[in-house]
Amino acid sequence: MSLPLNPALASTSRPPVMEARRWLEGVSFPPERPLINISQAAPVDPPPEPLRRAMAEAALNQPDAHFYGPVLGRSELREAVARDWSRAYGGPIRPDEVAITQGCNQAFCAAIQTLAGPGDEIILPLPWYFNHKMWLDMQGIRTVGLHCGQGMVPDAEAAAGLITDRTRAIVLVSPNNPSGAEYPAETLRAFYDLARSRGIALIVDETYRDFDSREGAPHDLFADPDWGGTLIHLYSFSKAYRLTGHRVGALIASPARMVEVEKFLDTVAICAAQIGQIGAAWGMANMGDWLAGERAEILARRTAMAEGMAALPGWRVKGCGAYFAWVEHPYDMASPELARELVHKAGLLLLPGTMFMPEGDPEGARHVRIAFANADQAGIATMMQRLAAFRP
Amino acid sequence: MSLPLNPALASTSRPPVMEARRWLEGVSFPPERPLINISQAAPVDPPPEPLRRAMAEAALNQPDAHFYGPVLGRSELREAVARDWSRAYGGPIRPDEVAITQGCNQAFCAAIQTLAGPGDEIILPLPWYFNHKMWLDMQGIRTVGLHCGQGMVPDAEAAAGLITDRTRAIVLVSPNNPSGAEYPAETLRAFYDLARSRGIALIVDETYRDFDSREGAPHDLFADPDWGGTLIHLYSFSKAYRLTGHRVGALIASPARMVEVEKFLDTVAICAAQIGQIGAAWGMANMGDWLAGERAEILARRTAMAEGMAALPGWRVKGCGAYFAWVEHPYDMASPELARELVHKAGLLLLPGTMFMPEGDPEGARHVRIAFANADQAGIATMMQRLAAFRP
Repeated sequence: MSLPLNPALASTSRPPVMEARRWLEGVSFPPERPLINISQAAPVDPPPEPLRRAMAEAALNQPDAHFYGPVLGRSELREAVARDWSRAYGGPIRPDEVAITQGCNQAFCAAIQTLAGPGDEIILPLPWYFNHKMWLDMQGIRTVGLHCGQGMVPDAEAAAGLITDRTRAIVLVSPNNPSGAEYPAETLRAFYDLARSRGIALIVDETYRDFDSREGAPHDLFADPDWGGTLIHLYSFSKAYRLTGHRVGALIASPARMVEVEKFLDTVAICAAQIGQIGAAWGMANMGDWLAGERAEILARRTAMAEGMAALPGWRVKGCGAYFAWVEHPYDMASPELARELVHKAGLLLLPGTMFMPEGDPEGARHVRIAFANADQAGIATMMQRLAAFRP
Repeated sequence: MSLPLNPALASTSRPPVMEARRWLEGVSFPPERPLINISQAAPVDPPPEPLRRAMAEAALNQPDAHFYGPVLGRSELREAVARDWSRAYGGPIRPDEVAITQGCNQAFCAAIQTLAGPGDEIILPLPWYFNHKMWLDMQGIRTVGLHCGQGMVPDAEAAAGLITDRTRAIVLVSPNNPSGAEYPAETLRAFYDLARSRGIALIVDETYRDFDSREGAPHDLFADPDWGGTLIHLYSFSKAYRLTGHRVGALIASPARMVEVEKFLDTVAICAAQIGQIGAAWGMANMGDWLAGERAEILARRTAMAEGMAALPGWRVKGCGAYFAWVEHPYDMASPELARELVHKAGLLLLPGTMFMPEGDPEGARHVRIAFANADQAGIATMMQRLAAFRP
C-alpha cells in the first residue's frame, strides 16, 4: 500500500533550477571552457565586505539576532522600507503596511493565500515565473495565461477578456522574470484601473526594480490614497544586496490584508531570519552608492547582451532587461533538447522556455531564458562566441 | 468595493503568540516585579559564544554562506542529521531522506502539503499545537481532534474510530506541545501500526526530543526497513542550539516523498538561510556536551515546576515535560480572562488553553499552557509565589 499523496502537489512540476542542476551531473568542463551558468538570477559574489562585517558583528554581539522576531519583520527594516518606498514611489507607505518575508517567493505565496483558494483563478502573463505557477498549481488555483504583445508587455484590455467570477488577482512582474521587460507606467496604471474596477487584486512583483533602466518611479500607483484596496507589492533584498542565501523579501499591502498575511507567515515561517533582516537594513542604510554602481554594471551587461545577440544569426531577442533575456533560438529542435546540448557542446547552462510556458504552447519550445546578469561582460562575450560556434 | 479575501484564511485564527504580546501593550511592570514571559518556547539567551563566533566567521569569510543553497538543504547538515539520527534511533537514515526547512513549522506545512488537500482530514490529539491547526484551516483541511487520556497520552484505538476515507495522516508531537507529555514507545508503535494498516501517514514532530527525560531512543520506528511508507519525522534546531531567530528545522521522509517536499520548499522558501544551517551543523558537531547540560537544566526546571505546582492549592498539572506544562487552574473564570488578569496582577504572560482546543471545548477554558523552560529555577519559584498570591 502506498502512502497518500496530495494529487495537486504530485501534478506540480519539479523545481526547474534543481532540474537544470541535475543536467550537470557527470559532465566535466575543461579548464579552457569552464561552465557559464546563466540559469538562475543569483549573484556570483558574496556581499561587499562591510555588509558581511555588519552581519558577522550582529551574529557575535547582538543577542536579538538569534531570537524570534516579530512575525511581520524587524521594525527598523519595516520602517526603512516604508520611508524609502514612500520617497521612491511618491506616495505615503506606513511601516504597518510592510511585511518582511523569508524571500520574495514567500511574499508571493502569502499574497495569494490571502486572496484565493482552490477553484479560484489568477491571471499570469506568459511566459510566467515558474514558482508562481507551481504555487498556484499546488494550491488548486487555476492559472490563466495572458500572452504578451510587442516587447513582451501584456495588455490590460486583453486581460479584461479573461476575467471571470472566479478571478481573484492579476500578477505582474516588472522588470519581468523571465522576459526582462520593463512595463511602462501606463501599462501598470491600466492594469490597476482594470483590477480596481473589477474588484480583484493587482499583485506587482518588483524583485528586480533596483536594476530598472529607467530613472524615477516605475509607476505612480502608491500615489492613489486607496491603493491598499487593489495593490499588493512584492520585493526582494536578494539581488540588490547579494543576500540570496539569507532569504529576505517584502510584501506591501493594506493593514487589513496584513492581518491575514501575518497568519500565513506565522504558520509557515514564524519570522524571517534575523541576520538577513539586519543585513538588509544595513544595506539600505549604507549601500546606496554601491547599488547604483551595481545597476550601472548590470545595464552595461544588458547592452552587451543585446548587441551580442543582434550579431548572432537566427537568434532573436524578444525581451531584455534587469537580469534576464527571453530569446528565440534558430534551431529546429525544442528548447529542452537545445538546453541540454548547450551544456555538453557549449558549456552553457540556461533554462528552456518550456519551463515558463503552459505545456504544448509552441512559444516555450522556441525560446530560452538567459540570466545574463550572472555573467560579466567578458563572460557575455564568451557566451556569444560559444553560441556562434554551436552546432546542434 | 472590498478586495477579495480567501475565506479559509479569513476564518483562521490569528497567531496566539502575537495576540498575547498585544496584551502587554500599555502595561508597565514595576522593577520589583518584572514580567515573567512563559508564553512561548523561546530560549532567553543567545547561543554560546563559540557558536556565535562560528556563524560570524561564516558570514565574514565563507562566500557560500550568502548564496542560494540546495532546496533540500546543505549537504553537510543533511549528512550530519542522517548520521546522528541513524545512531540515535537504531535504524539507517540516509542523507537523501533528510530535508532542511526554514524552521519546523515549515517542515509541518511541507509534510501536510504532500499528503492532503481541501476536504481531506488530519487527526490531531487535543490539545493541539496551534500552528498545526492554523495551517490545516487555511488549507481547507478538516482537523479531527482526539482527546487524550491519562498523562495526556493519546490512544491509538480511540484514533482508529476517527479514521474515514478522507483521513490522510495522524500527527503526534512528542514530547508534546502544549502538554509536555512524553509519549511511550508503545504508544508511538501502536499509532504507527494503525497508520500503516490503514494506508495513512504518521507524522511525528520531535521538536523537543533533546529535552526528553528518558534515556535512549524514544521509539524504534526507524528500525522498520519500510518506515518511509508510513512515517514522516519533524525536528527543530531552534531549541537545542538557541537558533530560533535563524529558522532551521528538518523533515525526514522517504526519497519518493522528498521529490514532493522539494517542490513545496522551492516555492515557499527556495532554501533555508545558510548561516542558520551552518550554525546548526556546527552545533551538532561541537555542542553535544553543552546540550547535555542544557537538558539537565531543563529537567531540573521541570522538577521545580512539578513540585511548585503540587504545593499550589487548586492547580493541577495534567502534563509536564520538555518546555511545557498543561495545567488546570482553580478559578471560576475562563482561561483567556485569567491569562489577561495574570498579566496585570501577577506579571505573568502565559497562553490560555482555549488557544490549543476547539472552540467551545470546556477543557480549553479550564487549562493554561506554561512554557516553564523559559524561566530559570529562581524564576519558577517566583512564578509560584505570584500564583499563590494571585486573587482574581
